[in-house]
Amino acid sequence: MTRHAGARLLLVVAVLSAAAIAAEGVEAAVVVDDAHLLPRPLVIELPTTAAAEAEKGEVVPAEVRCASWRLAGEANNLAPWKSLPEECAGYVREYLTGVAYRSDLEVVAREASAYARTARVGDDGRDAWVFDVDETLLSNLPYYADHGYGLELFDHREFDKWVERGEAPAIPSSLKLYNEVRDLGFKTFLLTGRSEGHHGVTVDNLKKQGFHDWDKLILRAPADRKKTATIYKSEKRKEMEEEGYRILGNSGDQWSDLLGFSTSARSFKLPNPMYYIP
Amino acid sequence: MTRHAGARLLLVVAVLSAAAIAAEGVEAAVVVDDAHLLPRPLVIELPTTAAAEAEKGEVVPAEVRCASWRLAGEANNLAPWKSLPEECAGYVREYLTGVAYRSDLEVVAREASAYARTARVGDDGRDAWVFDVDETLLSNLPYYADHGYGLELFDHREFDKWVERGEAPAIPSSLKLYNEVRDLGFKTFLLTGRSEGHHGVTVDNLKKQGFHDWDKLILRAPADRKKTATIYKSEKRKEMEEEGYRILGNSGDQWSDLLGFSTSARSFKLPNPMYYIP
Repeated sequence: MTRHAGARLLLVVAVLSAAAIAAEGVEAAVVVDDAHLLPRPLVIELPTTAAAEAEKGEVVPAEVRCASWRLAGEANNLAPWKSLPEECAGYVREYLTGVAYRSDLEVVAREASAYARTARVGDDGRDAWVFDVDETLLSNLPYYADHGYGLELFDHREFDKWVERGEAPAIPSSLKLYNEVRDLGFKTFLLTGRSEGHHGVTVDNLKKQGFHDWDKLILRAPADRKKTATIYKSEKRKEMEEEGYRILGNSGDQWSDLLGFSTSARSFKLPNPMYYIP
Repeated sequence: MTRHAGARLLLVVAVLSAAAIAAEGVEAAVVVDDAHLLPRPLVIELPTTAAAEAEKGEVVPAEVRCASWRLAGEANNLAPWKSLPEECAGYVREYLTGVAYRSDLEVVAREASAYARTARVGDDGRDAWVFDVDETLLSNLPYYADHGYGLELFDHREFDKWVERGEAPAIPSSLKLYNEVRDLGFKTFLLTGRSEGHHGVTVDNLKKQGFHDWDKLILRAPADRKKTATIYKSEKRKEMEEEGYRILGNSGDQWSDLLGFSTSARSFKLPNPMYYIP
């Protein structure tokens, strides 16, 4: 090893160690704290390093911790959570109302579009793309702006009132993708956790926002109400397969839109740091 | 709708639309540009809005575009890529050498640790945790620092030379997790894409960095060389299951460490914007 590489290696170890301590401040929203059950031996000299780093003022800022929390959610690393970590309320609001959220949505749509164009759509009309609705085709940001962007616990009644207004705006990058996959010959299946009672208002809202000519809009029947979204949506995808459809693409803002069984050939996870649906 | 909410809704639509145009600049590393094949109707008034936003100077900065690219990778939205998008070289270097990467690693390890503590480890010694090695237990940052942090195409020979030095440092948050899951009674299986010829140096490197008493270290045999990592690792996990092990946890920096078949009850995706292994 050269001296240069050696110095860098030490630096890497030092920075990694410091962050291990500094990031202790991060709290997921739902964490069972039973750390006292474990001796947790300190195998490496973390305290010394952390103290040294702290002297240099190198503490992990809340914004970095919250970015890590958000990333962990998008990579499906988080346990189910009911509301944002409190310290991340400001961070999430800034993210959603700034340019980053829109950029994140757009990059996912572009990847989906590039894939859709290379996927070979057969002549038999059996290739399908599944779209979730909320936070995938339609945005509920105006609602969440009035409810702490996910800091408040989810309130079914309040949210239903918002849904019934039928005024959720389209996510433009999703609308563009939707039209692209339709033009490419995919069947488009909209699969939503909204209940069947919201069929009419959902159709109106979608049409008003430029979504037209979908092949199926599947809402949650009373019998599906107690199922997790993962199971409910997997069962519906399975029915599509049983009807002879090949699900080549699936877009959703929740991992429960994408995982389970009868999964799509390729799935696209849209960002959503506001809520978690199991 | 109140006037207040109406104004916000219009704002949301405007910002979303502007970003849809502004983010056009993002280029994934491997994108087949056949956009000319499509008419791509402009359903919403994007140009007008974009022009208005451009007047206000609201263009998506390269840093935001690169953050979106990185997020898309971590959420498994990207097609296979061979090197970083060129415009993101500086962004990725800053990310990896700054506090954010360490914080991201630490948050994933904390989530894994919280899960490990609540998972019920049976008395039969059959509960297992699978760890990848490179960029999961050991860090190759010193190597990648000399090779553009993923901007250069992967060079097997150069990388092998680095591996053979046996000087890759531990990722501290992973070492802590490793010891925790061992103390909890999990069998620890290290499953790496490194070739069997690197068995000795890998053992030495791991031990030197504080990793001890793993139950199995599985390296890639010549017969597995042409398989994708997804298939190779799935087959090895399947063998574990056939030997009677229950894979409750799996930590890896590549989606190919985690997906496929015989997947773990829960998987943890560590961040890695430097390379992609299918």
